[in-house]
Amino acid sequence: MSRKYVYHFSEGDATMRDLLGGKGANLAEMTNIGLPVPQGFTVTTEACTRYYEDGQNISQEIVNQIDEALLKLEEIVDKKFGDLDNPFLVSVRSGSRASMPGMMDTVLNLGLNDNAVEGLAKLTNNPRFAYDSYRRFIQMFSDVVVEIEKTKFDAIMDAVKEQNNITEDSEMTAENLKELVKLYKDLYKEEKGEEFPQDARKQLLAAVEAVFRSWNNPRAIVYRRMNDIPGDWGTAVNVQAMVFGNMGEDSGTGVAFTRNPATGENKLYGEYLIDAQGEDVVAGIRTPNPIDTLKEAMPEIYKQFAEYALKLEKHYKDMQDMEFTIERGKLYMLQTRSGKRTAAAALKIAVDLVGEGLITKEEALLQIDPGQLDALLHPAFEPKALKAAIPIAKGLPASPGAATGHIYFTADAAAEAAKGGQKVILVRQETSPEDIEGMYAAEGILTSRGGMTSHAAVVARGIGTCCVAGCSEIQINETNKTMVTSEKTYGEGDFISLDGTAGNVYGEELPTEDPQMTGDFATLMGWADEFRRMGIRTNADTPRDAKQALDFGAEGIGLCRTEHMFFEEDRIPAIREMIVARNEEERRKALSKLLPLQKADFKGIYEVMEDRAVTIRLLDPPLHEFLPHGDADIRALATDMGLTFDELKGTIEGLQEANPMLGHRGLRLAVTYPEIAEMQTRAIMEAAVEVIVEKGFNILPEIMIPLVGEVKELRYVKDVVVKTAEEVMKEKGVKVNYEVGTMIEVPRATLLADEIATEAEFFSFGTNDLTQMTFGFSRDDAAKFLDDYYEKQIFESDPFARIDQKGVGKLMKMAVDLGKSARPDIKLGICGEHGGDPSSIEFCNSLGLDYVSCSPYRVPIARLAAAQAAIRS
Amino acid sequence: MSRKYVYHFSEGDATMRDLLGGKGANLAEMTNIGLPVPQGFTVTTEACTRYYEDGQNISQEIVNQIDEALLKLEEIVDKKFGDLDNPFLVSVRSGSRASMPGMMDTVLNLGLNDNAVEGLAKLTNNPRFAYDSYRRFIQMFSDVVVEIEKTKFDAIMDAVKEQNNITEDSEMTAENLKELVKLYKDLYKEEKGEEFPQDARKQLLAAVEAVFRSWNNPRAIVYRRMNDIPGDWGTAVNVQAMVFGNMGEDSGTGVAFTRNPATGENKLYGEYLIDAQGEDVVAGIRTPNPIDTLKEAMPEIYKQFAEYALKLEKHYKDMQDMEFTIERGKLYMLQTRSGKRTAAAALKIAVDLVGEGLITKEEALLQIDPGQLDALLHPAFEPKALKAAIPIAKGLPASPGAATGHIYFTADAAAEAAKGGQKVILVRQETSPEDIEGMYAAEGILTSRGGMTSHAAVVARGIGTCCVAGCSEIQINETNKTMVTSEKTYGEGDFISLDGTAGNVYGEELPTEDPQMTGDFATLMGWADEFRRMGIRTNADTPRDAKQALDFGAEGIGLCRTEHMFFEEDRIPAIREMIVARNEEERRKALSKLLPLQKADFKGIYEVMEDRAVTIRLLDPPLHEFLPHGDADIRALATDMGLTFDELKGTIEGLQEANPMLGHRGLRLAVTYPEIAEMQTRAIMEAAVEVIVEKGFNILPEIMIPLVGEVKELRYVKDVVVKTAEEVMKEKGVKVNYEVGTMIEVPRATLLADEIATEAEFFSFGTNDLTQMTFGFSRDDAAKFLDDYYEKQIFESDPFARIDQKGVGKLMKMAVDLGKSARPDIKLGICGEHGGDPSSIEFCNSLGLDYVSCSPYRVPIARLAAAQAAIRS
Repeated sequence: MSRKYVYHFSEGDATMRDLLGGKGANLAEMTNIGLPVPQGFTVTTEACTRYYEDGQNISQEIVNQIDEALLKLEEIVDKKFGDLDNPFLVSVRSGSRASMPGMMDTVLNLGLNDNAVEGLAKLTNNPRFAYDSYRRFIQMFSDVVVEIEKTKFDAIMDAVKEQNNITEDSEMTAENLKELVKLYKDLYKEEKGEEFPQDARKQLLAAVEAVFRSWNNPRAIVYRRMNDIPGDWGTAVNVQAMVFGNMGEDSGTGVAFTRNPATGENKLYGEYLIDAQGEDVVAGIRTPNPIDTLKEAMPEIYKQFAEYALKLEKHYKDMQDMEFTIERGKLYMLQTRSGKRTAAAALKIAVDLVGEGLITKEEALLQIDPGQLDALLHPAFEPKALKAAIPIAKGLPASPGAATGHIYFTADAAAEAAKGGQKVILVRQETSPEDIEGMYAAEGILTSRGGMTSHAAVVARGIGTCCVAGCSEIQINETNKTMVTSEKTYGEGDFISLDGTAGNVYGEELPTEDPQMTGDFATLMGWADEFRRMGIRTNADTPRDAKQALDFGAEGIGLCRTEHMFFEEDRIPAIREMIVARNEEERRKALSKLLPLQKADFKGIYEVMEDRAVTIRLLDPPLHEFLPHGDADIRALATDMGLTFDELKGTIEGLQEANPMLGHRGLRLAVTYPEIAEMQTRAIMEAAVEVIVEKGFNILPEIMIPLVGEVKELRYVKDVVVKTAEEVMKEKGVKVNYEVGTMIEVPRATLLADEIATEAEFFSFGTNDLTQMTFGFSRDDAAKFLDDYYEKQIFESDPFARIDQKGVGKLMKMAVDLGKSARPDIKLGICGEHGGDPSSIEFCNSLGLDYVSCSPYRVPIARLAAAQAAIRS
Repeated sequence: MSRKYVYHFSEGDATMRDLLGGKGANLAEMTNIGLPVPQGFTVTTEACTRYYEDGQNISQEIVNQIDEALLKLEEIVDKKFGDLDNPFLVSVRSGSRASMPGMMDTVLNLGLNDNAVEGLAKLTNNPRFAYDSYRRFIQMFSDVVVEIEKTKFDAIMDAVKEQNNITEDSEMTAENLKELVKLYKDLYKEEKGEEFPQDARKQLLAAVEAVFRSWNNPRAIVYRRMNDIPGDWGTAVNVQAMVFGNMGEDSGTGVAFTRNPATGENKLYGEYLIDAQGEDVVAGIRTPNPIDTLKEAMPEIYKQFAEYALKLEKHYKDMQDMEFTIERGKLYMLQTRSGKRTAAAALKIAVDLVGEGLITKEEALLQIDPGQLDALLHPAFEPKALKAAIPIAKGLPASPGAATGHIYFTADAAAEAAKGGQKVILVRQETSPEDIEGMYAAEGILTSRGGMTSHAAVVARGIGTCCVAGCSEIQINETNKTMVTSEKTYGEGDFISLDGTAGNVYGEELPTEDPQMTGDFATLMGWADEFRRMGIRTNADTPRDAKQALDFGAEGIGLCRTEHMFFEEDRIPAIREMIVARNEEERRKALSKLLPLQKADFKGIYEVMEDRAVTIRLLDPPLHEFLPHGDADIRALATDMGLTFDELKGTIEGLQEANPMLGHRGLRLAVTYPEIAEMQTRAIMEAAVEVIVEKGFNILPEIMIPLVGEVKELRYVKDVVVKTAEEVMKEKGVKVNYEVGTMIEVPRATLLADEIATEAEFFSFGTNDLTQMTFGFSRDDAAKFLDDYYEKQIFESDPFARIDQKGVGKLMKMAVDLGKSARPDIKLGICGEHGGDPSSIEFCNSLGLDYVSCSPYRVPIARLAAAQAAIRS
């Protein structure tokens, strides 16, 4: 038997979403539970996939099934296409597994032809409506199905209006519209070399194909990429009998939510228009009435609708977004689906539904999109002000939140202005580690280069500062201190505002609001903690970040980057002295200056984290990152250090690398200069001892050795660490429960994880680097070509944002299995950017990791995502 | 029962090399076949390993076994330690699995003490000899075992000589030496706080430990790294009764080879001294006699020795290097081992041994070290001139051979001087693709930066030009045109010579000799071809290279890099025009200029290769490699191209990458600019069609798409390639048997090789990049820190020279298995640098690859290595 490609609504149900699409499955489900749904059928997503497999051709098999379904549908609704008395019209709508609103094509009033239009006029007693519908159908069909430009039709319409001295569409008479239909059909013939199709079957097949085709239109592709929807899902096509809300005062149409989608309040929320079609509600020409008023206007219909709404919410156990039409006093339900809602509403609805006994806590947790929580954790613009503002440019939404302040073009200027009490936006082509201080001082950061994982983006997310990155529409000239858009040039001190959630830049001051964390937020997070299996840690380099993360519910630090501390003003001279040292003795001298500073840093962090584990990573970046590059800066530093310019310049040039990402960094530094690891270990351990003695906390330092690829290099550095740690404990007479582990970020480490686990007490997956090396993508450079990869449908999501489970994930799995084979109780975590991404967190849960670590502002998201993963598994 | 750590010579044999070391196993074997060997025992390599496991401590268990063996040995030789009449003395020598001559420590005359010295004097009737032996023993023991500096003893000796008005050691009397012994023992006591040990057992244990310790002395570590000897093998210790060749005119000592190690001639070759100890032969104070003359001096002994030599050669089936001593008319064999030989001798001996029926062809093939062949394929310095010359610096032996010529510091100057008929050495800090022309023109290349896989090294090996790379002892200033050593400054036009085999630089002109390929070479290569399973291809970008490789026996081209062609003077303008094109139209215009040039290149190569497969890789390097960097060059190019300086500079800056190795290169270029792949495919196919039509060859182009990490990107580019190829064949009406495949060089490609194999007809492992990404090592940068890795025993070989089987090899294995699962007949090859490395070739054979591809000058090595691999497997 051949495959079934077409289902009548009565043949499907809500579980068949993959096959019928969301809309089709819900129409079927509504039909099943007895709601009044205009009948129709669904051409499946498999038919769409097959259409592409067959080289964009609808096979005869599918055509036959559509033909049959069409005949049967005529029977069901007891109408006939092209009937002069009771003509049959259908809508043709896309509907994929995931909601993709407005991304694909729709054709309404299909079935209209020169006969049916007369039938419709008779039936509605409204020739004007009938001919308006026909001319709209011709225009829509021509646009969507055969791609005749809309503007050509608009030009004809304008000509007819001018000829008749008409300015508004609504002034057009039935005769005008009849004339228009004739002209439209002429245009069609001229463009296509054939008459406008009068056969409904022909119209329908063409429309179905157009919907299939629209699955791969550019905006659909972009939408899928933004929403992680696979390109091979395909769309279903829903063919449904038309009903008309514009058949007089006993007709109407509307949309409504079962609860308020902005606040979550449990009360019907929506609007409707009497004597109107769906488009009219959306188009905004007439102002719709609040749904409440339907109670008085059509009490019976309202009562019915309220019942249906309640039934649907109980049936689907979630807030519903419904469309309805009233045709001559009869209510039809056209669509239902889970309603989109704000983050605040999502929390309230979920908590309320549990309270109402409609869903379980687990179901409530699964209802919330973890990514949505972000909006609750950051400042936002006042909605009114935002609505009125027009962006001057758009970049990448690199770190969420809203910020407003004065432009500064260097980190120093930004830091200074902030000290003077100004609100500051740091604007740079791109940031580098030297800019850290200015980045901390700024309300927001704007860069013209770099992607979602550029330095600016990573740091901004880490410290919870709003950031718009890679805003290539803006030219930034740091020397001239100008920021140029196509419209205007902005200078130092000028006001701008950034929306890091949307990626928008505004050329003015916009008022912001602080985040409100309601009781529902706390309730839901509490439930998440009940269900999740994995621990949630944070990536934090300072007591401030650590404190923030604790407030958000972090249970430990999974990554403390010691190098971030080195960039601060009081230590950069010592680190530079260390780097340019000509021998071990000089290097040790410089390191001894750093020791008390690092120790103080760690003490600060331990004091905040108390009895919680703190994973501290030894120095990771290549040393040249700490050195100046311009001749003037080099000259100044040389003077400071008592070196000649040539000496220092020579040292700096000698440290340059062709591919620093694959260069002398990570534990390779400690192999060459074990004294660095020694100093850092001493700082970690002495700080622990002091906080244990002074505060009585049980400090749990986990010393993490980065970039391991071979067990012997780990062993070499671990020996230095352990020797130093034991020395400190002996000197101080205090025992510290420290551990030594490694990051798994080099592909080779995953392949030999069993050997590495013999030395490492824990693994922390560094999936940023692991992704770079597994794909051979430099994250600093990949943004330039990844757009081509999305456009050409090679990639559907950014592997730096979402773990590539097939490739990188395979290596992670191998590392987990091998690691456990050698050390069954090995502690496993992740500290790459992916640690805050819900889909990646679910993958980590399936791998059996013990914890994920993410930036402080992602902690609540991670808590929820981890709970969802645990519930789903 | 506990493990046996000590074996008497009579208990072992030659198969126990891993346990007893090479020397110990051979002493045992000689004992077994009835040769007169001074008896002794071997402390096993396992004892050494255990010594390190036990924290550098010889466990009691091993001590007991040594004690026992010592007692038994006294019985066997019927002598007693410290005996006043017949004292027993032993030598203590290291001996590991692999030969490491001179790397570890030796103690002779152990057992001497205040009594035994008297016994020895009596026995030899030579008190002077006895005391000289004792003072040497004290000095050697103190140096090797307890690390008292030699110079302190030398100072005492000088004082004694001065006191007695003696200038030569040989003038010292027995009394002087007796006095010296006393003073030496005083020094020992002063330094160590205890008397010089008189107990032979104590002496022995200390000496054994010293030998164990010497396994990890710095020069042994370096030697192991250079010779790929694992650090965990450990050394055995051989304790053997001393015999004395210095007991008068009926005594003597010598070394000899069973055949001439320089020429391979089948005739005893060696030398001996009468009344002398082994050291004397080596020391060169007395001139030894040729072994021939022993026939007259001691006819019986000579006859015996010649018999033993023949017996040993027949027994070991290989040319032997033997040491012997004659003590009072009795011949003792002290050592035998396979003799080191020149490459020419190795070939002759192997071929002769087969001719003599002593070994099979397989055994002959296994006897040759493939790496040694290299010496036969390149020019060399005239031996006499070389012997007299002193290097001015040492760098890495990056590409073998010898070259002499005038220094030039830029590629242009070098090319011009070469055109003028000069022999030229190109001297640069490092080379870049822009230097290609100058590199081709040069006799040799010297760089101060970069490792064995730097650009200079790779290109030089590819074109067979001698190269010394990374010679950091030399400062090269390209602007001033100077090359500065610690001694002298060299300028443009000065003569230098390079030994690319040894890595030496000479500050003068040295005469060179062209390579001689004898008939034995051809014979052996013929045998290799009989036995090998894998095909041997070559990496060649030009007809010249292809021709050279064919002469060396290549069977196809495994890698033709199309970008090398782009750097030539007549095409670089077009490629630059293509890169700075502002849109597809401009780009296509520039590409159309490149098409006929590329086509001509491919025709040239096809015409040389005839019916053999030619794998052509599509454009691989990042585009910025083709653009100038200096402002002056940019200005000139901008003028040429009708662009403003700022425009061009902007384009060039926009193309800069933080990590070009992981950037926009490989097939990523073709994803962005499919028109490049289109032009290249057209050139490949049109060239094939023309050569098929014009010459009648069956041209077999294999189009290779580089840097694949995801099947969809391969599919995208493959579609472009196939569409173009089919178009060309249709246009021309000629069918070409082309294939489309990919390089496996990104780790992700190995993990998803099954998916990739659905599109790829062949895989070629690009192990250079695969190694870079698997380790996270940039090969341009790793040289800076890899030295630390060798020194600290983390790495024992360069992963860019020898495939890392545990890591990179695991990925290769995965790719092979997955690839075959999806396409059982997939063609598998390797085209990375490793394709010419014998150990890597053996690994490729074990993986089941179909061919290896290497630079032309490695082809004979690969043929031999592939045969060895096939024979061994």
